[in-house]
Amino acid sequence: MELGFIGLGKMGMNMVTRLRRDQHRVVVFDRAAELITQAETQGGVGARSLADMVGKLTAPRAVWIMVPSGAPTEETVHAVAALLQPGDIIVDGGNTRYHDDVRRARELKTRGIHYVDAGTSGGIWGLKVGYCLMIGGDEAPVKHLAPVFTTLAPPDGWAHVGAVGAGHYVKMVHNGIEYSMMQGYAEGFELMSKSEYRLNLAQIADLWMHGSVVRSWLLELGAGALKEDPKLEQLKGYVQDSGEGRWMIADAIDKDVPVPTLTAALFTRFRSRQEESFAEKMLAALRNAFGGHAVRR
Amino acid sequence: MELGFIGLGKMGMNMVTRLRRDQHRVVVFDRAAELITQAETQGGVGARSLADMVGKLTAPRAVWIMVPSGAPTEETVHAVAALLQPGDIIVDGGNTRYHDDVRRARELKTRGIHYVDAGTSGGIWGLKVGYCLMIGGDEAPVKHLAPVFTTLAPPDGWAHVGAVGAGHYVKMVHNGIEYSMMQGYAEGFELMSKSEYRLNLAQIADLWMHGSVVRSWLLELGAGALKEDPKLEQLKGYVQDSGEGRWMIADAIDKDVPVPTLTAALFTRFRSRQEESFAEKMLAALRNAFGGHAVRR
Amino acid sequence: MELGFIGLGKMGMNMVTRLRRDQHRVVVFDRAAELITQAETQGGVGARSLADMVGKLTAPRAVWIMVPSGAPTEETVHAVAALLQPGDIIVDGGNTRYHDDVRRARELKTRGIHYVDAGTSGGIWGLKVGYCLMIGGDEAPVKHLAPVFTTLAPPDGWAHVGAVGAGHYVKMVHNGIEYSMMQGYAEGFELMSKSEYRLNLAQIADLWMHGSVVRSWLLELGAGALKEDPKLEQLKGYVQDSGEGRWMIADAIDKDVPVPTLTAALFTRFRSRQEESFAEKMLAALRNAFGGHAVRR
Amino acid sequence: MELGFIGLGKMGMNMVTRLRRDQHRVVVFDRAAELITQAETQGGVGARSLADMVGKLTAPRAVWIMVPSGAPTEETVHAVAALLQPGDIIVDGGNTRYHDDVRRARELKTRGIHYVDAGTSGGIWGLKVGYCLMIGGDEAPVKHLAPVFTTLAPPDGWAHVGAVGAGHYVKMVHNGIEYSMMQGYAEGFELMSKSEYRLNLAQIADLWMHGSVVRSWLLELGAGALKEDPKLEQLKGYVQDSGEGRWMIADAIDKDVPVPTLTAALFTRFRSRQEESFAEKMLAALRNAFGGHAVRR
Repeated sequence: MELGFIGLGKMGMNMVTRLRRDQHRVVVFDRAAELITQAETQGGVGARSLADMVGKLTAPRAVWIMVPSGAPTEETVHAVAALLQPGDIIVDGGNTRYHDDVRRARELKTRGIHYVDAGTSGGIWGLKVGYCLMIGGDEAPVKHLAPVFTTLAPPDGWAHVGAVGAGHYVKMVHNGIEYSMMQGYAEGFELMSKSEYRLNLAQIADLWMHGSVVRSWLLELGAGALKEDPKLEQLKGYVQDSGEGRWMIADAIDKDVPVPTLTAALFTRFRSRQEESFAEKMLAALRNAFGGHAVRR
Repeated sequence: MELGFIGLGKMGMNMVTRLRRDQHRVVVFDRAAELITQAETQGGVGARSLADMVGKLTAPRAVWIMVPSGAPTEETVHAVAALLQPGDIIVDGGNTRYHDDVRRARELKTRGIHYVDAGTSGGIWGLKVGYCLMIGGDEAPVKHLAPVFTTLAPPDGWAHVGAVGAGHYVKMVHNGIEYSMMQGYAEGFELMSKSEYRLNLAQIADLWMHGSVVRSWLLELGAGALKEDPKLEQLKGYVQDSGEGRWMIADAIDKDVPVPTLTAALFTRFRSRQEESFAEKMLAALRNAFGGHAVRR
Repeated sequence: MELGFIGLGKMGMNMVTRLRRDQHRVVVFDRAAELITQAETQGGVGARSLADMVGKLTAPRAVWIMVPSGAPTEETVHAVAALLQPGDIIVDGGNTRYHDDVRRARELKTRGIHYVDAGTSGGIWGLKVGYCLMIGGDEAPVKHLAPVFTTLAPPDGWAHVGAVGAGHYVKMVHNGIEYSMMQGYAEGFELMSKSEYRLNLAQIADLWMHGSVVRSWLLELGAGALKEDPKLEQLKGYVQDSGEGRWMIADAIDKDVPVPTLTAALFTRFRSRQEESFAEKMLAALRNAFGGHAVRR
Repeated sequence: MELGFIGLGKMGMNMVTRLRRDQHRVVVFDRAAELITQAETQGGVGARSLADMVGKLTAPRAVWIMVPSGAPTEETVHAVAALLQPGDIIVDGGNTRYHDDVRRARELKTRGIHYVDAGTSGGIWGLKVGYCLMIGGDEAPVKHLAPVFTTLAPPDGWAHVGAVGAGHYVKMVHNGIEYSMMQGYAEGFELMSKSEYRLNLAQIADLWMHGSVVRSWLLELGAGALKEDPKLEQLKGYVQDSGEGRWMIADAIDKDVPVPTLTAALFTRFRSRQEESFAEKMLAALRNAFGGHAVRR
């Protein structure tokens, strides 16, 4: 089928590549002209502007937005929507907070434009493996887009999980679980790194991929990373987060659901980014105050 | 090769089945005569007693012990060791705390008997998939047992990870990671179970198996469980633990390693088994005392 | 001085009592007429309506609002503000989220009305001990209200901590700390309740009040509660929360600050209110799925 | 009454000072001769050796041991016990793990020597305020020592809480609670240190001492520390721990009691002492592996 595609970054370009492999007609746009040129080498149809892109699509048009979440996505949705007509569809494939999906869909509905949210997992491996797609939206536009989802995802790798926002909601929970799993592995490997047994962590990560209860794709990646750099000496323990964990905690608190491993995982990331911790200084100060315990100055 | 095998429970019987498929000669014993008979139908050689079993093995003998950890394993090790000769090998395939391995190996070494610990993962699925085996012990006996490990494990599914105790040490960490992963999934699915989106949890678990970052074997099992009982109405949230999580926390504290998700996971299990929590009563009492907040009596 | 006072609940009535002790002129209003009558017996001047109350005050008027946080406070602020004139002051003494203070102050400023937020701690003991008051707002209105603060608080028990919202912000953090402290005590007393030593918890709580490092006002209250009901058999472990803990977590996440004991404390409260936990069922389901572990149905 | 006293460190010397104020006869010993001399200036009777000390006491002798816990205490108990006679009493006033008390008491009982454990709280402030004493042991020796306890403690500041070991058990729980409280304050003050309100932390800590729900002795110390060094710029956030928190976690795990704030508090201390965290590197490695997220090298 035919699709407009905005945002040719790491993820977006790979998605266009998959779409072209299945012969979809993809009209592409990005603020960086060289990325458009690159997409054209794969058979994408380059557009000079959003208006140009929309002009090159046949109604009902479908435009996939794959730009950073937050303001860039918000602005792009508005700019594209202004160019579309009733019956057209916007797909947000980024990491949008689901409340924003609900709001946008309501706004666009007044003008007859459909809004579909696609939670997208798979990272840089999606090009090869396919992207796991969690889709939220109305029945009709989702049905219309099915050929695109089928191309982007591995077999059985996409599903319509609910109304608008549900796709990004499920993706948010997916990422929260990811945090806990990563933290679980991290704790285990740190402990093993301190064992008297002088364990070969890469060997163990690889071993566990074969028949153990903890085998997973994340572990497979961990095995690869440890093979390349067995003591992780080449990188800093500075761990960023892209928001979904925070949102999931907010949602859990709204719904009175305990999420202790998720919070532990997020707080570990916070701590990893602190040069020094005021809380820890406060602890040292208190110990000193009641016990005369030596402090380091 | 040839192997004595003690303990024909759920795990043990399946292991004997795999060993027989590869034509190993297996002399079996269990306190339950009917289990011996069952193993004989698979070509196992039944023994009437430990002494009988040892008599039916050729030196250097190798005996695999697969009985519940703690006292049963300890007693079996002693009983078998008393019947063995220098050069023979005892394998403990259960969930022993690694300190006990170290102690036993030291004791047996004085009599020339080898001791090998085999951390075994895979549960009831090991029969089909093979068991992931983490092996600790001296080079020579591990080498001797290699054909047995190769049969029991899937391809690349066993490794000699270190000196005596290392096998169970790595298995302990494996199980601790398992706790964190399970807890991470549990938090995510509880949250989704409360979503306004009326999500289909079985669909989502299954979806995530195809290309998502959180795909894993545990998730595959979760998808199966949710398919059978979508709201988990058929079972109680009463969660036991078999010790490795506790030991791993003790080890982490010995080595000054933070393991916040592991503790959160274990404490969730503790709480799941409490009819009522004294701590929570204490909180209610304190709130009432300072704020006159209503309490439930 | 002179003060309008709206909201004669548990806290409000006690505050009026303290204000009257120091001979302040207090014009009181509540939706419940009998509470007004009760306040009149202490020398309060009853008002039949908000308008009546405002009419009985001399400019610049100061009105203290002490009604439940959220919608009731919001509505009362609007209703009172509509009756006030430039130079008048509204004090919100409830548990308002500080963002609301900032918004309201901005709105009222356009009409020349001052807004002061007073975080109020002390609960039902405030009548006797005095209320610890954390004040946010502009210099002038805070100065004007100083005599009232001095009456309500114990010696040195009030402070102007910052601009509008700062009072409730500091109160929010105060309450979050309260959660962690309560949880710390709760964990310790639960553990002691399970000791082989058959400890007398009331004795220990009382003992610790004399010279120990953990002595505190909360502990004093705990000692009293345990004296009355040594095994806390008279109440359920059902623990509510009034919002500040949730807001503090949201704020901590905004500012990348780890708050692991606060989250643990809040999640304990969540769990205390669950009849059954979906997460724990999921754990049981997973254990059953990989290990064939017995589950309770 | 009369007491032998071994260990004239920070705590011990202060205790001797209190004992002398009440005219107890105290025979003192320490490995450092100058500390003995210092104690003599307060009226203590110096001893040249343990044997000399025992020789200077009248039967039934009572000897208080106040040396570092672990090996130093263990050795001192043995050395003193070897010099004592049936009916004599040893008091361990240090931070001993309660299992050791139980073992020692059992050993000494065979020789008719009493063993009493005294959990001692109060730190460097005990000299002035008195020490909160949690006493474990048999009825008779505890009764005999009552005058000493009364002198060392503030009014109502000592209690016989149970059989041998109970004193140190209760002290262990006391310290665990202390960890949670300290961590709760630390989290709150870190958050406030990052507030847009530019809060005066010393002012707030001091304010909360007057009528607030979170007032406590620890907070009073915190207020003092913040007054001296408002941004805690003079010290490192390097926080040690002296064992009781670890033991309490082990005990909680033995008894299936969730202690989430205690573990969070201990893990924060662990983290504070790590130059870099392997776990955090592992997280960075995993993020990089699946998402191509930038890492810091």
